[in-house]
Amino acid sequence: MESIDLLIRNGSVLTMDPQGTLIETGAVAVSGDRIVKVEKEDALTASYQATKTIDARGGIIMPGLVNTHTHAAMTCFRGLADDLPLMTWLNDYIFPAEAKLTFDIVYDGTRLACSEMILSGTTTFCDMYLFEDAVAQAAKEAGMRAVVGEVIYDFPSPNYGPVEEGLKYTEDLIEKWRDDPLITIAVEPHSAYVCSPELLKNLHAIADRNGAPMVIHLAESEREVDDIRERYGRTPVGHLAEIGFLSSNLIADHCVALTPEDMTLLKDFDVKVAHNPESNMKLASGIAPIPELLKHGITVGIGTDGCASNNNLDMFQEIDTVAKLHKVHTLDPTVMDAQTVTRMATIDGARVLGLGDSTGSLEAGKKADIIVIDIRRPHLIPMYNIYSHLVYAATGSDVVTSIVNGQVLMQDRVLTTLDVDEVIAAVNQIAQGIKA
Amino acid sequence: MESIDLLIRNGSVLTMDPQGTLIETGAVAVSGDRIVKVEKEDALTASYQATKTIDARGGIIMPGLVNTHTHAAMTCFRGLADDLPLMTWLNDYIFPAEAKLTFDIVYDGTRLACSEMILSGTTTFCDMYLFEDAVAQAAKEAGMRAVVGEVIYDFPSPNYGPVEEGLKYTEDLIEKWRDDPLITIAVEPHSAYVCSPELLKNLHAIADRNGAPMVIHLAESEREVDDIRERYGRTPVGHLAEIGFLSSNLIADHCVALTPEDMTLLKDFDVKVAHNPESNMKLASGIAPIPELLKHGITVGIGTDGCASNNNLDMFQEIDTVAKLHKVHTLDPTVMDAQTVTRMATIDGARVLGLGDSTGSLEAGKKADIIVIDIRRPHLIPMYNIYSHLVYAATGSDVVTSIVNGQVLMQDRVLTTLDVDEVIAAVNQIAQGIKA
Repeated sequence: MESIDLLIRNGSVLTMDPQGTLIETGAVAVSGDRIVKVEKEDALTASYQATKTIDARGGIIMPGLVNTHTHAAMTCFRGLADDLPLMTWLNDYIFPAEAKLTFDIVYDGTRLACSEMILSGTTTFCDMYLFEDAVAQAAKEAGMRAVVGEVIYDFPSPNYGPVEEGLKYTEDLIEKWRDDPLITIAVEPHSAYVCSPELLKNLHAIADRNGAPMVIHLAESEREVDDIRERYGRTPVGHLAEIGFLSSNLIADHCVALTPEDMTLLKDFDVKVAHNPESNMKLASGIAPIPELLKHGITVGIGTDGCASNNNLDMFQEIDTVAKLHKVHTLDPTVMDAQTVTRMATIDGARVLGLGDSTGSLEAGKKADIIVIDIRRPHLIPMYNIYSHLVYAATGSDVVTSIVNGQVLMQDRVLTTLDVDEVIAAVNQIAQGIKA
Repeated sequence: MESIDLLIRNGSVLTMDPQGTLIETGAVAVSGDRIVKVEKEDALTASYQATKTIDARGGIIMPGLVNTHTHAAMTCFRGLADDLPLMTWLNDYIFPAEAKLTFDIVYDGTRLACSEMILSGTTTFCDMYLFEDAVAQAAKEAGMRAVVGEVIYDFPSPNYGPVEEGLKYTEDLIEKWRDDPLITIAVEPHSAYVCSPELLKNLHAIADRNGAPMVIHLAESEREVDDIRERYGRTPVGHLAEIGFLSSNLIADHCVALTPEDMTLLKDFDVKVAHNPESNMKLASGIAPIPELLKHGITVGIGTDGCASNNNLDMFQEIDTVAKLHKVHTLDPTVMDAQTVTRMATIDGARVLGLGDSTGSLEAGKKADIIVIDIRRPHLIPMYNIYSHLVYAATGSDVVTSIVNGQVLMQDRVLTTLDVDEVIAAVNQIAQGIKA
């Protein structure tokens, strides 16, 4: 008998491995931060002795979800303003609120976001915002896996000040968090419409020098396309291709307004796409041509975007929307089937973030990022098909256990790394200041 | 001090009355099946002494949600088949499964649906299916308010046999449940494409004789419109107008594919509309022109449709979809604002069902159909705007208390009228037979 740290047993193990293996009455053995074995429970318990055992009670054991696009600290602005024209929303509510941001606010807002994400089964997220060192610190303390980067644009930032300091801030972040087991620093220009070609080239160079991923908002709406066409004579994607910014380590958020040539470019450069349907719907940005991107063989993950435009971080609700929105948009009920969408929320999301080799599926040797879904609930009865339940019936509140890097962050809906009452009190305090 | 049976206190009371009154630190006094008073808590506790008190713990006290279109017993087929072409889905999965239906299956499936609905804050539903006496019985035992009716079409039914027996079955139902405090029987032809004009006229006569509401699927897709145009030379709405079927007691489900003339007809006859966006999305039926219907002054409620095309009965997820879908469809972020959508899910839903005078809002004299939302959860922090939270952030699992007709059906997430384990076991057993 080999000793292991953790055994998760008595569930249907949805591995999301390349073969799509589903193991009924399966179990997962974890040692340290890694998965040792995924197998039928009988076989596994015959070989391993575990220090701690988690009983999935007949539920679903699966990889934690990967949220490929967040502005985590915007939890502080959840519901501050909705149902408004975009410019009113930004100029009268979001920008004034963001002008008040501090390291501490971003830290507390991110802790709230991590609480919500862990409770709803997200184990990895990719963040863009201000004061991202606070985001990294909060994620690290919460025990979550995160790709984070400071948002950079041509004008001064409430955090670092002038743009050149932004480049330095990013390089300092990369240095500070290098080789961290949970945190990866990304280089994150906001978008082509607020970043000059020169700034984008400088940021690309920083990413290249450090082997860092890059994140950018891209082609979020037709308005952005019109704006970039007017300035540069090309679509946003065409513009980025022209200045040499497209590459396989680029995570492009939204990609709503694309031409056929744009899609070919994204595929040719192996750019990764983060799809955020609920935010795109709420802000009336448009519907991204995801079925076409998938046909092109482009890797697409799913994100919630920030809480000011969603207004939650529940990836289960997001995948439900992904599956349904494209069906009605294409008038084809067969597109974006439940298995495809589950893949996008797990292994493909990990690939989008450059973490496909270490997370996103339950396979021996991978990091132990695992969640358990309780299916003994009226809205999950009966169960004919696991993928169907995950996409069309479950919500984040059905997740009962969340594990990241081998550490149990939530068990039976109780957080282990975060004092939820303290976090809630801190953000409620921040909200008082925002209202004032 | 006046004695009352029940006091719900310590919450923000969202009344959904015509003035949109919101009472911070409010309370609701209930005596028997009725609301006696809705007021500031201090004032109310000075006048009333309650036998039982429910502490909303700072949460939201509001009217229970009204699900205006369900096929409740289709919980038995939840996830049986998804992502398929409509005809494959119907002919290869749903119709064969429905051929096996019995009174007992419908009864158990409806008990599961009631469990799910009560747990997610729905207090009233409007059902169309087979063996509806079983639905009425299950709803009554669960303590839910329901409008139910046997589906009628030109061909024989697995329940009543030949169509003439369907008319008799409906009249028997009306007789059996007349004056029931919870159950209202409706007359329910399936649709214009499987009901002859003569059958529709006969059913209309039954409804008229008995003062019963009518329910029909109407203009669910362009295909239906093409079909009816070919047969009758008119749109489905135009056809129903022509044969005298449109009236103010008609509940029209879906109304996806409408012409401007159709909308005028619906308004002229004061037809009520049940909007089911998630089902319409999943089946790729299309997007109903709800913002336009509202501009016409048509009363629109929200429904989930059955669990085979959704796949849950969570009205909170449905209202989130309502608010977002129409924004992206019209490319206008101001349409279907959160307050409008909340109204559709409560008082307007009640009006759709002909129950607007007795339920759908918290006002003295109305039936006590009340839910409590717990907001001490990370995804509901902070709170700037109640409507925003209900529509964009909450899910059914945030409902902690559900009360119908003054009876507490769920408290602290525990059902009082249904043995949830027994119901789950019964439906899992049924599912074994469906798989076989």
